[in-house]
Amino acid sequence: MEKLVLLSYGSGGELMRELIEKDYLKYLSNPILDELLDSAVFELSGKLAFTTDSYVITPIFFKGGDIGSLSVYGTANDLAVVGAKPLFISLSFIIEEGLPIKDLHKILESISNASKGINVNVVTGDTKVVEKNKGDKIFINTAGIGVIEPNRDWRSRKVDVDDVVIVSGDIGEHGLYIMLERLGMKTDEIVKSDMGYVGSFVLPLLDNFEGIKFVRDATRGGVATVLNEIAYKYNVEIEIEEDLIPTKDWVLQASEILGIDPLYSANEGKVVIIADKSQAQDIINFLKKFELSANATIIGKIITNKKPRVYLLTKIGSRRILESLKGDILPRIC
Amino acid sequence: MEKLVLLSYGSGGELMRELIEKDYLKYLSNPILDELLDSAVFELSGKLAFTTDSYVITPIFFKGGDIGSLSVYGTANDLAVVGAKPLFISLSFIIEEGLPIKDLHKILESISNASKGINVNVVTGDTKVVEKNKGDKIFINTAGIGVIEPNRDWRSRKVDVDDVVIVSGDIGEHGLYIMLERLGMKTDEIVKSDMGYVGSFVLPLLDNFEGIKFVRDATRGGVATVLNEIAYKYNVEIEIEEDLIPTKDWVLQASEILGIDPLYSANEGKVVIIADKSQAQDIINFLKKFELSANATIIGKIITNKKPRVYLLTKIGSRRILESLKGDILPRIC
Repeated sequence: MEKLVLLSYGSGGELMRELIEKDYLKYLSNPILDELLDSAVFELSGKLAFTTDSYVITPIFFKGGDIGSLSVYGTANDLAVVGAKPLFISLSFIIEEGLPIKDLHKILESISNASKGINVNVVTGDTKVVEKNKGDKIFINTAGIGVIEPNRDWRSRKVDVDDVVIVSGDIGEHGLYIMLERLGMKTDEIVKSDMGYVGSFVLPLLDNFEGIKFVRDATRGGVATVLNEIAYKYNVEIEIEEDLIPTKDWVLQASEILGIDPLYSANEGKVVIIADKSQAQDIINFLKKFELSANATIIGKIITNKKPRVYLLTKIGSRRILESLKGDILPRIC
Repeated sequence: MEKLVLLSYGSGGELMRELIEKDYLKYLSNPILDELLDSAVFELSGKLAFTTDSYVITPIFFKGGDIGSLSVYGTANDLAVVGAKPLFISLSFIIEEGLPIKDLHKILESISNASKGINVNVVTGDTKVVEKNKGDKIFINTAGIGVIEPNRDWRSRKVDVDDVVIVSGDIGEHGLYIMLERLGMKTDEIVKSDMGYVGSFVLPLLDNFEGIKFVRDATRGGVATVLNEIAYKYNVEIEIEEDLIPTKDWVLQASEILGIDPLYSANEGKVVIIADKSQAQDIINFLKKFELSANATIIGKIITNKKPRVYLLTKIGSRRILESLKGDILPRIC
């Protein structure tokens, strides 16, 4: 019979100890985690970044990854965009009773591979189990800690008129793919999530270009929402050109079918960058050297510092205000 | 009409921004959080502790606290028991759609009060909303970071024969009270959770006594499970005396009714301490000065370093092996 996660796995007793010592340590062992203290302990100094995200994506397994790798990359990305090299992550599971143990193993293996791939260690964790229909298979929370080298800290730089807006690659893939998947549509191999670790190109970029003034990964709410956040944070008007936005054909097709604009669809491996105009082309050339940012493109610029607003120059030549995501419902895509 | 949390609050768009800027910052504002970057950024140096816990307790409001204060104290306690002063916490909500906004406000207020009371700041956060019956009102994850002053680091000290076993006060209250509450039993004012911040006495204790060799808060699995963890970690036999264990009358009565041994019932403000015999009485006298450890008691000692085992000398004079919590189900008490 298939082994399932039981409520008692979350009770703090013998079964939980077995789960931790046999299953978790098998996949995630490292000297800090192996101590199994109430807290992980390590030496660290400097300017630190600290972030958290919970992942409630459905389905939990999907093309391009699963909820496990997503929970590693997503949190590592939130560190990388502020210029931090991710070092340590915490891992907390909220499991609905009845999850097949083999699914938990698959997720642990995926977490193991993702974290090894980007050189971070899971150093502390927690497991709770809730009753059937009080959760949904598995929710994961990761928090992460990283160190910001002084030259990578863009926070004091001022976004201003003439700065360029860059996206690191084709947009809208994660959200649209997950919606297609959820609708049960058969899709080609190229139709998949863009999930990946943006630190692979963001950190070297920050090392090389002092003209980088802002970086954010365009997850929930998509590129349009990030641009509005920038407009409000720096009180600037931003103009982007629809023609310039790099978008895969399948994304455009899916967006027509589903009525979801790629500009509002979540990405899991793309960032929006604001940079000094004088370095713009060098930045693009630099980004093109990295696999995950090979299609980096300048899509617009800051036009005034008078008020917070984002405009889209459309393909047909009109100009319209591009607002933040409103009430639209794309639930549980991350 | 009562305002409810909608799925779109978790979508990353306008509604989420309103929730963050109006509601979260109202209760939790501090200079680091107010930046609203993808990661919190702060300077910190030294030996750091890092921990995480998810809270899925039901009911979410209870006598002695609620899921909000529990999520602050629980994570602060995991830091304090390894000798760390808690400084920063992350806060991540997984909300079932339909939660009344007033409940969310009540929880935010409770988080605000608890964190101010122990001088920690919520510096980063996340909100996800899941559909009806895919969650249960609200789950909270907190991760925490603290700093360990060198003199508070007990990890290298060796637990050995003749060391004493101390509990910091009356045991079993949180778990038994939550079970009574869930059964809908009317209870006196004194019948409540013991939830509290153990750092209030653990940190000064570590400053004053080098003979403290181990500290752990006895949450899920209770005192019996922590004692077994100690026995296995240090390969020692531990003997405790039932007669010495401080327990409130209502706990003993509830434990008879519910068939749950207080030694296996969760505490949320109690720790198990292993200490050098020579300092034992001074430690007890010191602990008695603090409100949360006023009833600290020596309940046993380490008797051999031959094998991992815990014994209970019962009131009727027999001696039995006290095992870890087995399959027993006390789900969702934290």
